[in-house]
Amino acid sequence: MPTRKNLSKLVEKAGVRSPFDLKDYLDRSSREVDRALRKYLPSGKIKPATIHKAMRYSIFAGGKRMRPVLCLAAAEACGGNWEQAMPHACAVECIHTYSLIHDDLPSMDNDDLRRGKLTNHKVYGEAIAVLAGDALLTQAFEIAAHCEPTKRYPLKNVILELTRASGSRELIAGQVADAEAEGGEVIEFKQLKYIHECKTASLLSCSARLGGMSANCTPTQLSALSDFGYHVGLAFQVIDDILDVTQTSEHLGKTAGKDERAQKATYPSLIGLEPSREIAKKLTDKAFKALKPFNQKATALHVIAEYLLKRTH
Amino acid sequence: MPTRKNLSKLVEKAGVRSPFDLKDYLDRSSREVDRALRKYLPSGKIKPATIHKAMRYSIFAGGKRMRPVLCLAAAEACGGNWEQAMPHACAVECIHTYSLIHDDLPSMDNDDLRRGKLTNHKVYGEAIAVLAGDALLTQAFEIAAHCEPTKRYPLKNVILELTRASGSRELIAGQVADAEAEGGEVIEFKQLKYIHECKTASLLSCSARLGGMSANCTPTQLSALSDFGYHVGLAFQVIDDILDVTQTSEHLGKTAGKDERAQKATYPSLIGLEPSREIAKKLTDKAFKALKPFNQKATALHVIAEYLLKRTH
Repeated sequence: MPTRKNLSKLVEKAGVRSPFDLKDYLDRSSREVDRALRKYLPSGKIKPATIHKAMRYSIFAGGKRMRPVLCLAAAEACGGNWEQAMPHACAVECIHTYSLIHDDLPSMDNDDLRRGKLTNHKVYGEAIAVLAGDALLTQAFEIAAHCEPTKRYPLKNVILELTRASGSRELIAGQVADAEAEGGEVIEFKQLKYIHECKTASLLSCSARLGGMSANCTPTQLSALSDFGYHVGLAFQVIDDILDVTQTSEHLGKTAGKDERAQKATYPSLIGLEPSREIAKKLTDKAFKALKPFNQKATALHVIAEYLLKRTH
Repeated sequence: MPTRKNLSKLVEKAGVRSPFDLKDYLDRSSREVDRALRKYLPSGKIKPATIHKAMRYSIFAGGKRMRPVLCLAAAEACGGNWEQAMPHACAVECIHTYSLIHDDLPSMDNDDLRRGKLTNHKVYGEAIAVLAGDALLTQAFEIAAHCEPTKRYPLKNVILELTRASGSRELIAGQVADAEAEGGEVIEFKQLKYIHECKTASLLSCSARLGGMSANCTPTQLSALSDFGYHVGLAFQVIDDILDVTQTSEHLGKTAGKDERAQKATYPSLIGLEPSREIAKKLTDKAFKALKPFNQKATALHVIAEYLLKRTH
């Protein structure tokens, strides 16, 4: 595996095509994900048009595709390929997008902007936004049903992986704890970490694991991918907290400083900005460490994790 | 198969245990469904307790269990048994319950009562109600993943059956069309039929089909079960419309006359009460006809369909 210094150099060389050119890798992989999502999601012309337009509106609202890209890169790390991992990657993206639509609802975070665009309910109304979320969650399992089963991981494992990560004990548990904490009493650091683990680390870990499963990875590889995804995911959320404090709305594409105004606990609000940055760095180091058992095939995963850490600078 | 007259007689003999005692059959089957749901759903003690309590609140709010019972009876009709069909039956009930929770939300039908009890959002608040619906939908697929695959119907078929019936072209399409029609311009009979097909007939047909699939039914049997479920389901919804006009809130366990006040199109409001009753009767007759290819093993399905028609009297 190339050293981190070399990788950073390569990443900086924008426009240079190489197997380790992050920009090129992200461009190509997210373009493939978009192409697959366009294929999987019903056309906006199919009746009832409103719901299919609303689903597509949020799916194609400019998301970073970090989860599906991690899924594809994890498949490569285990000797698989993008094609095998594509249904898994798209299923995860549908679940992520549904959770954002519902999270933005007036009864939840009541957000007007997401990724620099109006949130789903601001465009389609609250009823359709609830239903578009429901439809994307259902769509995720329809897409997952098209995963090619591997010897170690039949469809049952794929479905259970998705339901665990997105169910009432992980993703939804995070939304619940978040809703209960908001505007309430000061919450402890432990509880905030739990929220971040549930809301972000679970689905990122699931993305990496599903990529591995699509490539019929070994149990040891699966465990390493869990570890990698968890640490990248938690780092990702801590960095989101940091960016909310340090960036403007224009940079973020959403209402900056909103967490603070909503009296929402964040890593910086509980432990300060610099300690939060240190934690993000440590988490990403742990993610790198998890990739050690892999050979140079994990380069993409490595570079993506590094890119996520760079966001704090 | 016994004649309908004989069956009616048997049904009337409350307390008499026989293979065709409807009350006994419904009691036993719904008790088994309840037992399985208690096992499948996370305990109210599992963190975060709120979401698991909210999920259980609506699942155990006294529903008729018509969908799971039809699923179990369909399995029997194809030579299967309740045990094999139980995950399928419970998955459908979770989907049905999630759709009711979301349908009752302030942004949708804004209902305070359901089955004679406060609706989920009246007890737990709107945010938790949205999430409890999401969690039950996710739970449905977790339960479905535990279905024992049969030779003709591997897990992929079961998942695709559920996603089709509950997705954006059927169940959710019905909710969308319903939301768009409410309080708007006068809708045509054709559109109302489409709403009823999507909102009710699809999932009832799916219930019957899944029961057949759990018993490794033949393609001919599957097609007959589709037909049966569709007609029973449409009849069921027409009868719901009729009951909203003819019954009091006490009998219904929900706010009676609500459809009329909400200017919601119903069969009686578009074509009158008696023609609606005739349609319900015709639909049920078609359902009976669909059962002809089965032998006496379809008796339970037959009696249940008859019971559904009796609700209009």
